[in-house]
Amino acid sequence: MNGAESLVSTLVDQGVDICFANPGTSEMHFLAALENPRMRSVLCLFEGVATGAADGWYRMRDTPASTLLHLGPGLANGLANIHNAKRAASGMVNIIGEHSSAHLKYDPPLTSDIEGLARPLSHWVRRADSAPAIAWDAAQAVAVASEHPGKIATLILPGDASWQEAGAPVLPPKTAPGRKPGSADNADNARKAPNAARIDHIARVLRSGEPTLIILANKATRGDALERAGRVAAATGARLGSQFFTARIERGAGRVPIERIPYAVAQATAFLKPFKHLITVETREPVAFFSYPDQPSLLKAEGTLVHPLVEADEDSALAFEMLLDALGARNVAPVVQQRVQTAVPSGALNPLSIAHALAAAIPAHAIVVDESLTTGRESMGHTMGAQPHDLINNMGGSIGYSTPVATGAALACPDRRVFCMVGDGSAMYTIQSLWTQAREGLNVTTIIFANNSYAILKAEYSNMGAGVPGARALSMIDIDRPRIDWLAMATSMGVPSVAVETAESFHQALVDSVREPGPRLIEVRL
Amino acid sequence: MNGAESLVSTLVDQGVDICFANPGTSEMHFLAALENPRMRSVLCLFEGVATGAADGWYRMRDTPASTLLHLGPGLANGLANIHNAKRAASGMVNIIGEHSSAHLKYDPPLTSDIEGLARPLSHWVRRADSAPAIAWDAAQAVAVASEHPGKIATLILPGDASWQEAGAPVLPPKTAPGRKPGSADNADNARKAPNAARIDHIARVLRSGEPTLIILANKATRGDALERAGRVAAATGARLGSQFFTARIERGAGRVPIERIPYAVAQATAFLKPFKHLITVETREPVAFFSYPDQPSLLKAEGTLVHPLVEADEDSALAFEMLLDALGARNVAPVVQQRVQTAVPSGALNPLSIAHALAAAIPAHAIVVDESLTTGRESMGHTMGAQPHDLINNMGGSIGYSTPVATGAALACPDRRVFCMVGDGSAMYTIQSLWTQAREGLNVTTIIFANNSYAILKAEYSNMGAGVPGARALSMIDIDRPRIDWLAMATSMGVPSVAVETAESFHQALVDSVREPGPRLIEVRL
Repeated sequence: MNGAESLVSTLVDQGVDICFANPGTSEMHFLAALENPRMRSVLCLFEGVATGAADGWYRMRDTPASTLLHLGPGLANGLANIHNAKRAASGMVNIIGEHSSAHLKYDPPLTSDIEGLARPLSHWVRRADSAPAIAWDAAQAVAVASEHPGKIATLILPGDASWQEAGAPVLPPKTAPGRKPGSADNADNARKAPNAARIDHIARVLRSGEPTLIILANKATRGDALERAGRVAAATGARLGSQFFTARIERGAGRVPIERIPYAVAQATAFLKPFKHLITVETREPVAFFSYPDQPSLLKAEGTLVHPLVEADEDSALAFEMLLDALGARNVAPVVQQRVQTAVPSGALNPLSIAHALAAAIPAHAIVVDESLTTGRESMGHTMGAQPHDLINNMGGSIGYSTPVATGAALACPDRRVFCMVGDGSAMYTIQSLWTQAREGLNVTTIIFANNSYAILKAEYSNMGAGVPGARALSMIDIDRPRIDWLAMATSMGVPSVAVETAESFHQALVDSVREPGPRLIEVRL
Repeated sequence: MNGAESLVSTLVDQGVDICFANPGTSEMHFLAALENPRMRSVLCLFEGVATGAADGWYRMRDTPASTLLHLGPGLANGLANIHNAKRAASGMVNIIGEHSSAHLKYDPPLTSDIEGLARPLSHWVRRADSAPAIAWDAAQAVAVASEHPGKIATLILPGDASWQEAGAPVLPPKTAPGRKPGSADNADNARKAPNAARIDHIARVLRSGEPTLIILANKATRGDALERAGRVAAATGARLGSQFFTARIERGAGRVPIERIPYAVAQATAFLKPFKHLITVETREPVAFFSYPDQPSLLKAEGTLVHPLVEADEDSALAFEMLLDALGARNVAPVVQQRVQTAVPSGALNPLSIAHALAAAIPAHAIVVDESLTTGRESMGHTMGAQPHDLINNMGGSIGYSTPVATGAALACPDRRVFCMVGDGSAMYTIQSLWTQAREGLNVTTIIFANNSYAILKAEYSNMGAGVPGARALSMIDIDRPRIDWLAMATSMGVPSVAVETAESFHQALVDSVREPGPRLIEVRL
């Protein structure tokens, strides 16, 4: 067994059984090792697709995927979506090919400081020193990536460590008995409980009856944690909120509803103004996404108190259980979202008719990946009563996250349809995702909101106090010369597509996309 | 004048009058400052296009362009082509938007360690501390980028430094009288001469009559330096060579011809074997591009001596002048390439017929950007007798360089047609270049060699000793499921296109592309 084979075998033994790959010459032995039938390999034509897909996989599975990238520049191409994944607390194991150690001293063209490039956006970086050590390194990478919250682990793989004899894999000692490698419930990522004093304090705050918002994030916006948060809210009158962006929310009919703190500073401060207390769960107090002249960074009102209930590495489900006990409210039923039957809309496309089309069309247990920026910002509030679904948002703000994340989510959940809502400007960053979706026959409906503009920048221009954009500034914001032909773009990568200009045809296109397996693209002409 | 206006005004005063931009919210004031009519702004839909275009601009102009990128992830998306530019010794000034200083401490979503991301691939990194200091910072960035060899300068621009009052620009003192800011002949980048003792040593080596190869690179492969190298060769019998990849070569009829050291290790060592001496000019001794088990990194034969003639920061034209004097060979005429009239080829497309079509079709003073990997490797040797042209190659090995570099080269030289030869796999990394080419009406003929495969990896797989690829490895190399529809891809971004399957139709498509201004795409079906 050579180093590459030892690496692949260790990854799958530890529960990492998918690799989003964009290989090059230095990774040929790793490619050969991918003949291992226990590892699924998915080819991506650009590295940002690979890292974003790994993020999407983690969002739905809560276990890390691996990526294979080609030296420093290959890693660099994947960094923006690694940033987004890191901010979403998604675990990921990146394997970065590298020249053999003996070759590096000659500084061949593809040489760069890979550790230097990896560190700003990785929690853990290691260079495999030798083939026999690779199994140990790989097991540690998976353990780190599998922690709660998820972590970015980056393992640099020199050619000689890849091709030399590795011997039998030697793994680090297990940190606790009964550990189930790579799974969400292994001992490594057993989540910590908040201390009892903090729970008592929060219970006192809630009993005060003063206006309180509980802000849920990361793993607290789904499953037991969300359901228990709903009981707390029902018992105390506290409201449940989320940041504008959340890694994954279980929402729709039957789920405990969460109010979304608005994006724009003025609206967010207005929304938060009534609250005397903000209780944070796996997050911190709300801050503005960007800084603006003469606008605050912190969004809460003066005098509002912030109380952490659950820190990022703690267990929200357990915390809410403790809190329910402290409140004596175990048996209070949560208020859940009712199904709202939306009539099929007709006529002009606007935020409301778009929302109604979505709410009427998306099937139960769909996954919605939202990078629609201006369009979605106004629409998504109107889809709360849709069938139960998962909503995924961009946590890092680097655009070009959605089409790769949708790709990874579709691989993670082959029996669920993924709707990827994306603005035309955003879609262009990692449009190569469509090819992987076609190749793998993924159930992804990509919805391009084509306003032929970086529309968000038009609003932000005046928000920034830069006034009204002149002709030259506008030419950096409008992307209508030439108009991107989205049907041709979809065709170029083997994805069937349709353009719609009315609400009813949008609804029909959504419904049609669910009927047949495989990817579809819908251009929504705005 | 605010900080952003001071920055833009200083850049143009220092000779940087083009900005390849992919802006976001934090750069709105910079966008407003781009209303300055002295700065040309070019919108790119992906940051790798912006940085690659800046590289292409420098290759043809020898002066830096600027880029505008959106925080750490925007920089990250541009890093692969910054790596390629750095390896090509291209100067570049990157402006990276950033949150205002007061906002950073709240760690909003788009925060990252921008300095950390920039440093591995920049020669100079600075954060603008305040609006009044920006002019100074910008002038220094341009001075560093304009050095010989060119440098990567990265200036981080916090929002508050951008929007606050800057006052009148304060610049660093000029380092020498008579400096012409930003131009190739300013005092900052006046090139050093090699010392006389080294020249004498090289003259002795050349007089020995022993087999000698003079390896030219960077600025030595064109202009006076190349012409004088030709005189040295004619006077002494030394041969002139280049690395496999060179930043820019003036070649074709009437130019001093340079032999290309092959890419593959076995062929390169065979080529170098006869030489007793290698004389290096703005480069170092040849090394293998990748490391392979049981193959050498250094390509020269045992016993071959390496003699540096011109270091990277020295002046090749001056060095060859000194050498000609030392040899008493000032008046020896160089041997130049004769025009080889190539008949229009017909029949099957193969490396030779492709070369003949190119050689017959490209007009005088065309610019050829080569990222054709497997196809071009066998073809380009047969185009030496074409009309005089410039040949640009990828120095950093990160694929996805050519379509952006062609974009920048076409902007730098609007009266010359650019031929961008690119493999299908490579083209997909930064395909967004086509949109900028259409928007700006650039004279770029993109030639896609569509073999539906990362063909180079098939050869490298066995070179690496990994044997014959199995089905799973092959599925990571072949990109034929689905076949990319290049005509649809071109249509999607507004570029007229044609597909060819014979040598004569390829030739005709090349000729047609020259007749009308604006971009064209030719899919060469292999």
